[in-house]
Amino acid sequence: MRTIKWQDGTVITIDQTRLPLETVTLKIKTVDEMAEAIKNLRVRGAPLLGAAAAYGLALAACNSNATCESELLADLEDAVQTLKSTRPTAVNLFWAADRVLGKARDFRGRVEETKAIVVQEAQRIADEDAEANLAMGENGAALINDGDVILTHCNAGELATVEYGTALGVIRAAWKQGKKIKVIATETRPLLQGARLTAYELKRDGIPVTLITDSMVGYVMQKRLVNKVIVGADRIVQDAVVNKIGTFTAAVLAHEHGVPFYVAAPKSTFDLTRTASEVIIEERKPAEVTHYGGQQVAAEGIGVLNPAFDITPLKYVTAIIYEGGVYYQKDFAKFKAGISP
Amino acid sequence: MRTIKWQDGTVITIDQTRLPLETVTLKIKTVDEMAEAIKNLRVRGAPLLGAAAAYGLALAACNSNATCESELLADLEDAVQTLKSTRPTAVNLFWAADRVLGKARDFRGRVEETKAIVVQEAQRIADEDAEANLAMGENGAALINDGDVILTHCNAGELATVEYGTALGVIRAAWKQGKKIKVIATETRPLLQGARLTAYELKRDGIPVTLITDSMVGYVMQKRLVNKVIVGADRIVQDAVVNKIGTFTAAVLAHEHGVPFYVAAPKSTFDLTRTASEVIIEERKPAEVTHYGGQQVAAEGIGVLNPAFDITPLKYVTAIIYEGGVYYQKDFAKFKAGISP
Repeated sequence: MRTIKWQDGTVITIDQTRLPLETVTLKIKTVDEMAEAIKNLRVRGAPLLGAAAAYGLALAACNSNATCESELLADLEDAVQTLKSTRPTAVNLFWAADRVLGKARDFRGRVEETKAIVVQEAQRIADEDAEANLAMGENGAALINDGDVILTHCNAGELATVEYGTALGVIRAAWKQGKKIKVIATETRPLLQGARLTAYELKRDGIPVTLITDSMVGYVMQKRLVNKVIVGADRIVQDAVVNKIGTFTAAVLAHEHGVPFYVAAPKSTFDLTRTASEVIIEERKPAEVTHYGGQQVAAEGIGVLNPAFDITPLKYVTAIIYEGGVYYQKDFAKFKAGISP
Repeated sequence: MRTIKWQDGTVITIDQTRLPLETVTLKIKTVDEMAEAIKNLRVRGAPLLGAAAAYGLALAACNSNATCESELLADLEDAVQTLKSTRPTAVNLFWAADRVLGKARDFRGRVEETKAIVVQEAQRIADEDAEANLAMGENGAALINDGDVILTHCNAGELATVEYGTALGVIRAAWKQGKKIKVIATETRPLLQGARLTAYELKRDGIPVTLITDSMVGYVMQKRLVNKVIVGADRIVQDAVVNKIGTFTAAVLAHEHGVPFYVAAPKSTFDLTRTASEVIIEERKPAEVTHYGGQQVAAEGIGVLNPAFDITPLKYVTAIIYEGGVYYQKDFAKFKAGISP
């Protein structure tokens, strides 16, 4: 099922903040509505943010009153700024926005034709993500054995992508091949994407899933209750994987216990011109940590840290699974050079 | 301030499930009420559970209608069973219950005198815990330097003890010595003792505290935002520290980053006749993980793990601080043999 769709000038998606208790459809009609949805995590997940940014530009194009090409490009440039100001870490958003804008700039056609080109390119980005996930699933499933118990963190599933998922795409592909696997999902504080989204997706698909708190990752590894870890990524730079806060903690524990640690992410997540030190880690508002469901939990007046992501150096990563194949540790020099494994 | 007190045949304490938003005094009048308070974590923290069990027996003694010594002992034995059936992991509860019962058995006096002896022994256990924490604080403060930023997990503070705290007792002692330290407190899912209790205690005492989710422990260590870890313990066996779920995760991360990892706990927590494999880890109900404040968070019908504790092998522990001094790694053979460091 597609998580995001273009329908007669409107973007149709699900409000992910309401899952799993309610399935609320969002009909997004403007780039500002799209930016709001991204900022507030109604739409989230690095690959999905790529498609969302692309569709955001499609909305800006369709809503533009431009009478000439340069006015339309100016409107699109404004929309790119609006979208890029939402969340700084997932690279797919920047990549997709730049790709659609570049297409419009290169086209140099009339206004209505350019609008059509923008919509077409957004559709193409969404379609490519769905295809990449299917290919990634096949590539990754080869690493999964019958009987594996796989730990995953946050949600790198259908809901984080246009379709199928990255880390959960690999799990789905292995399951479809008849491998009897089980999943342990971390709840992923503060916003509980694991409890709310990953557990929901897997349960719906009939794949056995057990929920733990983030603090139990060490426990399940020490007790040998998991034998593989697969996570997604918000950005993969030359020397590290940037992903949901808690990923690094899981990677160190996997390393300590000799548990393979896999990252599944499409090429649109690769940012090979940068290193970890250049990545901006989004710091979100303290209330996400001190409150729950509008209800205060923690004492008043204390300090709070709330980085949304952390950085896992590649030395902790066993392999990177993408639509083109699998980079193992021995292939990481090729990965950095942008060469196929 | 005493967390637990004996007042005219009633035990006065605080309902810790209501903090920090409400300060509700509990007046516990029977051993069954005490058992309920322990089971539901209204009264929690290993050293406090020792005093609570002892006072529970004092309540059983005072409420007993026994007309002879053997009837009173039978009532006390029933009360010991009730108290021991509440929570299986913290050893102080077992130790204190057995100590008070032993005292009554050895006394062999008349009913009213034995009742008085039971109350007196319970008071003594409470007083000893308060004294042990003060001594532990002094011993541990010597390990803390001006400018340290200390990570702590769960609540090993005044609220977990009769007075002053174990891990937070060390922090309080260092602070009183004028060392300008800061604390990073993990929220400690699922029951948020860090967010609710540790942050509250430290804020009240004016000690700077910053709250993080459990998933951020790797992040703060990688960024060198902490340079020491101090936690309490529910039980220390020959080869490991048993403490709140998440402690092992923090210990592995500290080890990986070269951050000293200290455990502060009174002798009443030591259980040197056992090894880690013999410790029963309490598994609590799934709703603590799937719900929050009565509100469902996770998808229906999924599996859940909810161990309340985990096991940290001594190889990850830099030193054990107790009322008698400090055992460093080099002293662990003495520790196991029950010899002073």
